[in-house]
Amino acid sequence: MPIGLAGPLLVNGEYARGEFYVPLATTEGTLVASYNRGMKLLHRAGGVTTTVLDDVMQRAPAFGFDSAREARTFGRWVVANFAGIKRVAEATTHTGQLRDIEQFSASRFLFLRFNFTTGDAAGQNMAGRATEQACAWIRERYPGLREFCLESNMATDKKSSQVNILHTRGKRVVAEATISAALIREIMRTTPEQMFAARQVSNLGGMLAGVNNNGNHSANAITALFLATGQDVANVAESSAALVHSELRSGGYYYSITIPALIVASYGGGTGLPTQRECLELLGCYGPGQVGKLAEIVAATVLCGEISLGSAVVAGEWVSAHERLGRNRP
Amino acid sequence: MPIGLAGPLLVNGEYARGEFYVPLATTEGTLVASYNRGMKLLHRAGGVTTTVLDDVMQRAPAFGFDSAREARTFGRWVVANFAGIKRVAEATTHTGQLRDIEQFSASRFLFLRFNFTTGDAAGQNMAGRATEQACAWIRERYPGLREFCLESNMATDKKSSQVNILHTRGKRVVAEATISAALIREIMRTTPEQMFAARQVSNLGGMLAGVNNNGNHSANAITALFLATGQDVANVAESSAALVHSELRSGGYYYSITIPALIVASYGGGTGLPTQRECLELLGCYGPGQVGKLAEIVAATVLCGEISLGSAVVAGEWVSAHERLGRNRP
Amino acid sequence: MPIGLAGPLLVNGEYARGEFYVPLATTEGTLVASYNRGMKLLHRAGGVTTTVLDDVMQRAPAFGFDSAREARTFGRWVVANFAGIKRVAEATTHTGQLRDIEQFSASRFLFLRFNFTTGDAAGQNMAGRATEQACAWIRERYPGLREFCLESNMATDKKSSQVNILHTRGKRVVAEATISAALIREIMRTTPEQMFAARQVSNLGGMLAGVNNNGNHSANAITALFLATGQDVANVAESSAALVHSELRSGGYYYSITIPALIVASYGGGTGLPTQRECLELLGCYGPGQVGKLAEIVAATVLCGEISLGSAVVAGEWVSAHERLGRNRP
Amino acid sequence: MPIGLAGPLLVNGEYARGEFYVPLATTEGTLVASYNRGMKLLHRAGGVTTTVLDDVMQRAPAFGFDSAREARTFGRWVVANFAGIKRVAEATTHTGQLRDIEQFSASRFLFLRFNFTTGDAAGQNMAGRATEQACAWIRERYPGLREFCLESNMATDKKSSQVNILHTRGKRVVAEATISAALIREIMRTTPEQMFAARQVSNLGGMLAGVNNNGNHSANAITALFLATGQDVANVAESSAALVHSELRSGGYYYSITIPALIVASYGGGTGLPTQRECLELLGCYGPGQVGKLAEIVAATVLCGEISLGSAVVAGEWVSAHERLGRNRP
Repeated sequence: MPIGLAGPLLVNGEYARGEFYVPLATTEGTLVASYNRGMKLLHRAGGVTTTVLDDVMQRAPAFGFDSAREARTFGRWVVANFAGIKRVAEATTHTGQLRDIEQFSASRFLFLRFNFTTGDAAGQNMAGRATEQACAWIRERYPGLREFCLESNMATDKKSSQVNILHTRGKRVVAEATISAALIREIMRTTPEQMFAARQVSNLGGMLAGVNNNGNHSANAITALFLATGQDVANVAESSAALVHSELRSGGYYYSITIPALIVASYGGGTGLPTQRECLELLGCYGPGQVGKLAEIVAATVLCGEISLGSAVVAGEWVSAHERLGRNRP
Repeated sequence: MPIGLAGPLLVNGEYARGEFYVPLATTEGTLVASYNRGMKLLHRAGGVTTTVLDDVMQRAPAFGFDSAREARTFGRWVVANFAGIKRVAEATTHTGQLRDIEQFSASRFLFLRFNFTTGDAAGQNMAGRATEQACAWIRERYPGLREFCLESNMATDKKSSQVNILHTRGKRVVAEATISAALIREIMRTTPEQMFAARQVSNLGGMLAGVNNNGNHSANAITALFLATGQDVANVAESSAALVHSELRSGGYYYSITIPALIVASYGGGTGLPTQRECLELLGCYGPGQVGKLAEIVAATVLCGEISLGSAVVAGEWVSAHERLGRNRP
Repeated sequence: MPIGLAGPLLVNGEYARGEFYVPLATTEGTLVASYNRGMKLLHRAGGVTTTVLDDVMQRAPAFGFDSAREARTFGRWVVANFAGIKRVAEATTHTGQLRDIEQFSASRFLFLRFNFTTGDAAGQNMAGRATEQACAWIRERYPGLREFCLESNMATDKKSSQVNILHTRGKRVVAEATISAALIREIMRTTPEQMFAARQVSNLGGMLAGVNNNGNHSANAITALFLATGQDVANVAESSAALVHSELRSGGYYYSITIPALIVASYGGGTGLPTQRECLELLGCYGPGQVGKLAEIVAATVLCGEISLGSAVVAGEWVSAHERLGRNRP
Repeated sequence: MPIGLAGPLLVNGEYARGEFYVPLATTEGTLVASYNRGMKLLHRAGGVTTTVLDDVMQRAPAFGFDSAREARTFGRWVVANFAGIKRVAEATTHTGQLRDIEQFSASRFLFLRFNFTTGDAAGQNMAGRATEQACAWIRERYPGLREFCLESNMATDKKSSQVNILHTRGKRVVAEATISAALIREIMRTTPEQMFAARQVSNLGGMLAGVNNNGNHSANAITALFLATGQDVANVAESSAALVHSELRSGGYYYSITIPALIVASYGGGTGLPTQRECLELLGCYGPGQVGKLAEIVAATVLCGEISLGSAVVAGEWVSAHERLGRNRP
């Protein structure tokens, strides 16, 4: 698959700082052009601010009991025995740490979300192995257990879910920028007011549709970057959820996108394949300690694509007699 | 990226009939082994029955008016003028046909879902172009329009949504099979009863999580096949939604998965790249008239992976003192 | 339960036109005061525009077959035999008409949404009876049916669902108004800009929460009016879903709420009880031909409550140093 | 509104133990008969086991900052200052306690869910007042705050949401029972197998519909009991969410319903009105220390209605030639 370079992308992150040329693996050439346009706009606007808000990987086993009451009792036991569980879980890994265990209950079951930090790996396998061992330890010690299921659809690996939108899977990253009206007019041939009005319609349509992402097309950037840098592309299923929030500001347009389940790694899996490693190195993201940087670059690239596509749709299409007369617009 | 072959996959479809060796592009070797195991089981069980229930691609523009009342009036005009809209839309394409226009309303907006058949292409670009032209025709003829937005988040391209789970985007495909208890014991080392009990927990956990897929990991097969056959992998965002329904039958286990938004093409985009075309040809799915076959093969492969992973989790993990004593299980 | 009167409510509907005093049954006295305040504001702003966009009641049976393929064939038979189904369904009722049958498929099942117009009744029982008879007729004529279920959770009686938000249950009503900044300042002691900024936060929070209503508290007005006028209050479960869309306009604030599943009746059920009938008569909504008027009054009352509570929250709470300095607000 | 008595309801709760006659305020006489039938069945089956899993009331303010990074910093400050926040919040109330503050983030906002225990009151007003005071304290101490919103749609008062299904609002109650096949045949004229098969269809239909409750009609019991006992009926909006999980057991049928957001009070609001208080006293649920008992009685009544309606639908309707021949059913 051809790899195009887009950039320079200017990022004001905590891990990614400065200009980056971003490798995008895609067969659709116009995609690279569109990202380039967004990167140019945001470069002139001062860059994209990025923040990793959370970083956690899960496995969520379910435990079944004779009744809900016993499930509740078990939940208290888990709290009381967290130190032991943590010790056993962490004995299986050099990099992962069991941060906490969230509890959710329904019927006669207790669902536990084991939340691990995973260093520079995506960490699904590590989390699975560590949880399995911790659960073996639990099951030896806890009588009255009726069933145990290592998988319960409460971590939603390779699936999109509200629990992950709320509680993060992988990295929770925000990319934000404020762009002046003058730049939007010059480069995008539209106005903040028109972009914002169209965004409101997308928000309304998205709520009507029951969508997992009220933005435009974050999956395009994520997929192209995942392919180029050797990420597990199946994780696009969960990484494609997003929350867009934008605002008209005096003289400009604030736009942000929150990606609550971005799953990236700077080593392990496909990151070591020759081309993929080269792409990571181009970004300065190969190896230990680089995963935050990679997450920020992905989010910043997504933001550029959001604004580029959003403004293109608006520039071509958002017109009406009333608008041309300027009546009643914000 | 390495491509592994899994198979033979036995499909009893309407387009795909017989044995197939399925190319899976993945860096995770165990994935191919896992699919192989599921394919072996389902081959012995008589194969996977597949059905394409629907086939439709959308673009969903929004039209804004002074109030909801005018939006409703416009909706009636669209119904009355469907023939004209269809003529203009179809003039832009050789392969697409405008099947119908669904209407959804909120506030002072009318959202139209233009539903196209797209032949063997995925058809997003075609649907976009045809809708754009049709909307230009509408806007010339319809006074009182306040805004127009070609994108409104009611087609949810590259995003997962309830509207697409209900109304299909791309292909709506079902894969089903019934497997005897003897085979499950022999090959999977577990029982239908245990698999079914675990499935019920996944259903409950999935509803608690607010997941877009109560199954196991359909995105894995879809991604690996999309990569191998030159599909747009960003569509994993919407194609990863699924509905699993299973049943205990006398002497066996019925399992089905419904993929409501599977987006595949047998030509166009990346399907013409050398390796990808070769993979399509290996499946007998390259070129005109083959897209239904490809959709069925994807769905059948997904089903094999569902049962393979599901049974592995159960075989290793689903145990308890009560169960060992066989108390109270179905 | 005490009944308070709020008003005058000024409605510019198609059925409700002019001033109304609205009976609210509630033990919370401040609620009536809050609605009064909103009604005063919107009266001065020229009233609330209301529109009934759709009107339809459902029952949604499921039909099971040996495989998805037979379910699809059955769907075609249903289309071909619609006239016969309609005749049998309508023979059971004087007021209901079978408008259409929507089809949804999953696994080896076909779900049919029988959509009835129901005149002035809410119509759940009528729709149930008519669907049951129609299904009996179908089942006598259609071989190969494996199971039949009169209830399938695709009409979601007494429950909230995306399918009803998309496709309406009961009345789909929009209430809208535009209020000048001067009025908002005078009566609400806040500004359109502050209300709009707070609304954006509620939209973002709502999407994060996975809420069925991004507005404020429509259930309060709906419940109080349902109680006063003899509606089935259990329908608050589905009637409480809503979509709010608002806009800053030059010099004012446009606010709309869409209630997609408002279930009301102007006769039948509890509407004939003495006090309840009196309340309906006070609104001019008792008896045949009045249900549209009642739906519009409910929606207009909801809108007054949205703006009243929304502005109260903002007036008391939406402050910050930056805002006091007027920096960067729209 | 007429009040009917259903019962005796046999409850094996932690607060409610023994037989209860349950007052149901409804104009639909058949509803009481239907609940009676379910109560008779479950009495003979040994009663309904009920468990209150959680008990917590929220207010969820949002805090806005210049960027996501500052929002994250603020989140750490909240953790560090929890003791102070708790002290200020609890100074406003005799009964409420601030249990914890959950944090959720999106864009440049931090959403805080203040979780209060509320004793025997429903506690919305108390939680609102306490949160408001705590936030005033925070805002005095925390510089850099750009906006503050006391309401953000992350507590979803009077609305249904996934966050409340996951994290509870009011009481999280489970009601469960196991019923022998003989009893189901004798009283319900159907079989566990048929009821279970129909339930699976409802689960599938519910997932397809995007419903907030995969059960039958919990809102009916909740509304009728809320009306009779002086609860705020508008809370049916959130209290109507539910998760049903059922199982075939050797010789019987296990059925459970989890109500994650049941909002009840044994004093305050309408509970002191004469008839309502009488109804509470009839249940032994009036006054301090009785709210757990009331929650359990509501949940047990809901369960009786679930099984009664579910079996009625099945007994009348779930038939087919294949089933009559007993082919392939579990």
